[in-house]
Amino acid sequence: MSGAKNNDPMALVEGVKAGNTRAIARMISLAEAAKPEHRTALAEIYRAAGRAHVIGLTGVPGSGKSTLVKALATAIRESGRTVGIVAIDPSSPFSGGAILGDRIRMTELTSDDGVFIRSMATRGAMGGLARASLEAVDVLDAAGFDVILIETVGVGQDEVDIVRAAHTVVVVSAPGLGDEIQAIKAGILEIADIHVVSKCDRKDANATISDIRGMLTLGIRMPKDHGQVHGAEVLEEEAPAGAGEWRTGVVATSAETGEGIGELLETLDAHARHLNDSGAMATRRRDIIEMRVIKTAEDILRRDFQSKRDTLAGLMDGVVARTMDPHAAAVILLATFNNNTDDNKD
Amino acid sequence: MSGAKNNDPMALVEGVKAGNTRAIARMISLAEAAKPEHRTALAEIYRAAGRAHVIGLTGVPGSGKSTLVKALATAIRESGRTVGIVAIDPSSPFSGGAILGDRIRMTELTSDDGVFIRSMATRGAMGGLARASLEAVDVLDAAGFDVILIETVGVGQDEVDIVRAAHTVVVVSAPGLGDEIQAIKAGILEIADIHVVSKCDRKDANATISDIRGMLTLGIRMPKDHGQVHGAEVLEEEAPAGAGEWRTGVVATSAETGEGIGELLETLDAHARHLNDSGAMATRRRDIIEMRVIKTAEDILRRDFQSKRDTLAGLMDGVVARTMDPHAAAVILLATFNNNTDDNKD
Repeated sequence: MSGAKNNDPMALVEGVKAGNTRAIARMISLAEAAKPEHRTALAEIYRAAGRAHVIGLTGVPGSGKSTLVKALATAIRESGRTVGIVAIDPSSPFSGGAILGDRIRMTELTSDDGVFIRSMATRGAMGGLARASLEAVDVLDAAGFDVILIETVGVGQDEVDIVRAAHTVVVVSAPGLGDEIQAIKAGILEIADIHVVSKCDRKDANATISDIRGMLTLGIRMPKDHGQVHGAEVLEEEAPAGAGEWRTGVVATSAETGEGIGELLETLDAHARHLNDSGAMATRRRDIIEMRVIKTAEDILRRDFQSKRDTLAGLMDGVVARTMDPHAAAVILLATFNNNTDDNKD
Repeated sequence: MSGAKNNDPMALVEGVKAGNTRAIARMISLAEAAKPEHRTALAEIYRAAGRAHVIGLTGVPGSGKSTLVKALATAIRESGRTVGIVAIDPSSPFSGGAILGDRIRMTELTSDDGVFIRSMATRGAMGGLARASLEAVDVLDAAGFDVILIETVGVGQDEVDIVRAAHTVVVVSAPGLGDEIQAIKAGILEIADIHVVSKCDRKDANATISDIRGMLTLGIRMPKDHGQVHGAEVLEEEAPAGAGEWRTGVVATSAETGEGIGELLETLDAHARHLNDSGAMATRRRDIIEMRVIKTAEDILRRDFQSKRDTLAGLMDGVVARTMDPHAAAVILLATFNNNTDDNKD
């Protein structure tokens, strides 16, 4: 308990491990701030994490993700487990971050100690969103939450990468969305371990369910490029032949009627068992880590650039004058890291 | 003309400079492929670029961007200028890339030699989307197009960064979109040099126009963080006091009736004159280059990781085993670039 009131980062770590709510909240803020002096504490958090089942939920705007997350979190609690939620919301410089409606819908859960909800503003992270969000997951994991839900809008490279850093990826679709939205949706369907069609109480939901089932049946058995960083060479079958391959299916849910929420939780638990029993978890953890280390390196690169702006001014002048091209300048920028291997320097 | 049939990249460069359509298309494909052997040619393209007025258009799904881009391109042609279009569309692994409807809507323009349209699939670029898209802009610029339009969905860090790499940023809003879409919109409003409210023939368009006007009038005079890479320190006023500050305004358009398209083109031209006359263009070019060099470095980092996978296996094992944290591994990864300053090596 003392950890929560103490500003010493290592004391905060102890508070997090003890499950202290204020310590958890403060430690996530430290992850967002990304100050070098908090690196040691966050590394310790990382070492203490690794037990939770991390579930990523994504879907296009209007797919009803947030409502589903709330229903799912309630079901997880009813199964006797604790749940942490990291919600990555579109940012507004005017409203200060998250979507107000979602926040309000979430409040019913917040009086429960077995639930911790954190909204991450995309704006504040300035490109370090993936790194900060995954460190927030570490904090909740180290704090002992059994299940961690990461919710993102399924648009944008960072947002999709964050969700792919989960052990189990749920893609939420909904009936009745426009053409442009549908096209965006198509880009994320392939990352699903489990499909959810929300709002299944609507009449037009059956068409959406059929579409996704059809896609799955048509042998568009998605390449398991989860965690894939660059190009086809990383493609690996998730489960070795004979070890029991995961069959991606569709769960129809209605947050209004509660339909399908129990089935979704069962399917999520089945996927966790599949990962562990088939040995696929090891591959997935490795893929996730590779992506995460690259994302973190990118974040360091961007932050470091600021501290080197004066030194790099001449280089940038050359690119502006077109006597040098951006690629050549980028190679030189990367080479500046050879004198910069101090863990505390970024 | 020979350049278009010759696969020698430097001959392609000459074809691009001569405005040869096939050479332009092939050179953009080389940019997408990002092979080291094409670096010299793309560097030469970059040196030959720099004359076009680059306009970024973004908006949430359903805002009518693509239709607006078509109407605007037609107006630019009618003003006697040529126009290149780079459209960054949500990708579908099943449809192979761009939104079909948009492609169909664009075909009327494609029989005109003074127009070049290129769709960039977000999927193929695997994180190098910003780099590849901006190199595509270089190609069109070097080919002599007077105006270049970059169209992106205004969701996702990469997509927003691409549009911010334009000289003039247009944010397209439309009436009648849902709450979640509106929240996403709020995140991009601040990057606008010019606001467009599309579909102004709709009854509910006036409310949207009033909302944006109200926001502008309320002194939420947006911080000009165009090209801002990281944090508040880069914030600079676009125009020095007295040099004529740019007043961000709202243009109401209807691609159906043609209303406002002429006014939008006039406003775009006025912004180009403002940038040049006030000296703000120099600052903007510098901001764009800084962002672009960082994005390129990130792309090199990701690609390079693949070639180093075997070497880095032990490091990744340590992170998976949690004996090392991702930040420490990322610092080590960055330090591997000290032996890697060859421009042709990535």
